[in-house]
Amino acid sequence: MSLADAFHGRNVLVTGGLGFLGSNLAIRLVRYGARVTLLDSLVPQFGGSFFNIAPVRDAVVLNISDMRDANSLDILVQGRDYIFNLAGQVSHGDSMRDPQLDLAVNCVSTMNLVEACRKHNPDARLLYTSTRQVYGRPQSLPVNEDHPTVPIDVNGINKLAAEYYHLLYHGTYGIRSTVLRLTNTFGPRQQIRSNRQGFATVFLRQALRGETVGLYGGGRQVRDFNYVDDVVGAMLLAITTPACLGKVFNLGSEHAYSLVEFVEVLGKFCKFKSESVPFPDDKKIIDIGDYFGDFSRFRAATGWTPQVDLEEGLERTVAFYREHKEVYWQ
Amino acid sequence: MSLADAFHGRNVLVTGGLGFLGSNLAIRLVRYGARVTLLDSLVPQFGGSFFNIAPVRDAVVLNISDMRDANSLDILVQGRDYIFNLAGQVSHGDSMRDPQLDLAVNCVSTMNLVEACRKHNPDARLLYTSTRQVYGRPQSLPVNEDHPTVPIDVNGINKLAAEYYHLLYHGTYGIRSTVLRLTNTFGPRQQIRSNRQGFATVFLRQALRGETVGLYGGGRQVRDFNYVDDVVGAMLLAITTPACLGKVFNLGSEHAYSLVEFVEVLGKFCKFKSESVPFPDDKKIIDIGDYFGDFSRFRAATGWTPQVDLEEGLERTVAFYREHKEVYWQ
Repeated sequence: MSLADAFHGRNVLVTGGLGFLGSNLAIRLVRYGARVTLLDSLVPQFGGSFFNIAPVRDAVVLNISDMRDANSLDILVQGRDYIFNLAGQVSHGDSMRDPQLDLAVNCVSTMNLVEACRKHNPDARLLYTSTRQVYGRPQSLPVNEDHPTVPIDVNGINKLAAEYYHLLYHGTYGIRSTVLRLTNTFGPRQQIRSNRQGFATVFLRQALRGETVGLYGGGRQVRDFNYVDDVVGAMLLAITTPACLGKVFNLGSEHAYSLVEFVEVLGKFCKFKSESVPFPDDKKIIDIGDYFGDFSRFRAATGWTPQVDLEEGLERTVAFYREHKEVYWQ
Repeated sequence: MSLADAFHGRNVLVTGGLGFLGSNLAIRLVRYGARVTLLDSLVPQFGGSFFNIAPVRDAVVLNISDMRDANSLDILVQGRDYIFNLAGQVSHGDSMRDPQLDLAVNCVSTMNLVEACRKHNPDARLLYTSTRQVYGRPQSLPVNEDHPTVPIDVNGINKLAAEYYHLLYHGTYGIRSTVLRLTNTFGPRQQIRSNRQGFATVFLRQALRGETVGLYGGGRQVRDFNYVDDVVGAMLLAITTPACLGKVFNLGSEHAYSLVEFVEVLGKFCKFKSESVPFPDDKKIIDIGDYFGDFSRFRAATGWTPQVDLEEGLERTVAFYREHKEVYWQ
């Protein structure tokens, strides 16, 4: 069965539906003919915006509410075939500056969601998007799912706890959950105006504005990158593949790049300069060093491989943000 | 330097100070001449009681407050040399019935404490008492600290997150923390009237009352046991040993016992019958099977070994609860 067939006419809830991942997912789900409800708190700094879903604004149901409120979730989960749990606080730096907010948004909210499913929709299929940050500093590369989890920021700890809640509710109550650990995801509809969604968004904004891109400590750190359309595809496969039930999977890419190399590729589409700058102390302390993930387990389970490489992805991304510069970065 | 010298005149805060571990620790600290403040929320089902500290009531400062309240902690951590963070919700079953309460009491409270230390007392020495429950069902025995953490109840997840907060604040901010993973601890001053503090308390109450002790599924499950005085000793060593900084250690015992064997030892001091009963579904689903821990890492770091074996510990324990039956179980 194709993904389009799998989702046609199905009732889907997307938490964080106005955010980067959620809006891109929503657009795909609408194309597949799903009945889509988007839940978003629109906490200003979290990245959600109405503009993100402009292409499907009239084809989805919007529900503005905060998952820290358990009562609304008890209602909102009912009748859903699929629930994509994408909402969350993603900034590592913010998680250190306001750890209690991160705890509430990532742990309390997730607990509310799995409890709501247990009580009101135990047959729902759930997907949770976690982060490679749960591993901390890699002890060896590439990192697979058996690598020890030693988070080095509050966000990594809280996302890990949220993973565990999903897996526990699968093992204990049969709530059918899958966890994906995302790496650097980039593409249209990301909040690039702030510094909250990773260095790639900062570089992109600086490049688009023609500013000088600052590479911490020379930019030799290695990372892997996924274009958002590939991540949307991964989420759709993960939530429809029985072999993914109750499991955790890495995403990742065939090739890893240093930040210098990333900036070189970006330079094909934008005119800007870059320079090495000192690593700020507050960033250095939560920096994980080199990272790239092994996604062979997810590939074996679902057949997924990334289709859009860094160059093609950045070309599309730059084109999108150029077209919508007033909205995202000007 | 002896432990008595290490604590004499020192300013010590014990969270959960009216509970099982906290009160036994307080009595020892007072004997060593420490200046002791006990913080306790006295949430009724958590096991704290004024009677627990009767022997030292006039030698300690009591502060009744809830660690979910960050503001009071910001004050209470100030000026402390040592902070023993023992407060928490410990019932695995309750954590499944009210997971949000468990999250608040174990995660939010711990975050409040480490944040308070970061802001107001970064030189304090911290000890956190965690649980072998973070490992879930053992993949091999004995379990050492490198065993994967796959908690199978909400309490195990939240205690694991709380461990991570302590270790993160050590690694990131230099807050000097140590984590001990306790196994079955027994002895005087435990809440044995309810079923919230583990099977040993239930067996003990039934044995004292002359009721029939019910062994789930025949009672072949293997466990290790520490008498509370040994655990107090372990905590005092852990918090004063520089080699323990930023690390996680198991406690444990030289010998492990099946529940049947535990009941046989208990039978030397109480007259009661026992019988096999079916494993209740809600207990079976969070049962970890056989467990005993490897504490060689902690022994190597501190020289600690348990001094009181199961038989001697149960003899003392039964004597204590017989003397105070109106308070604890009648």
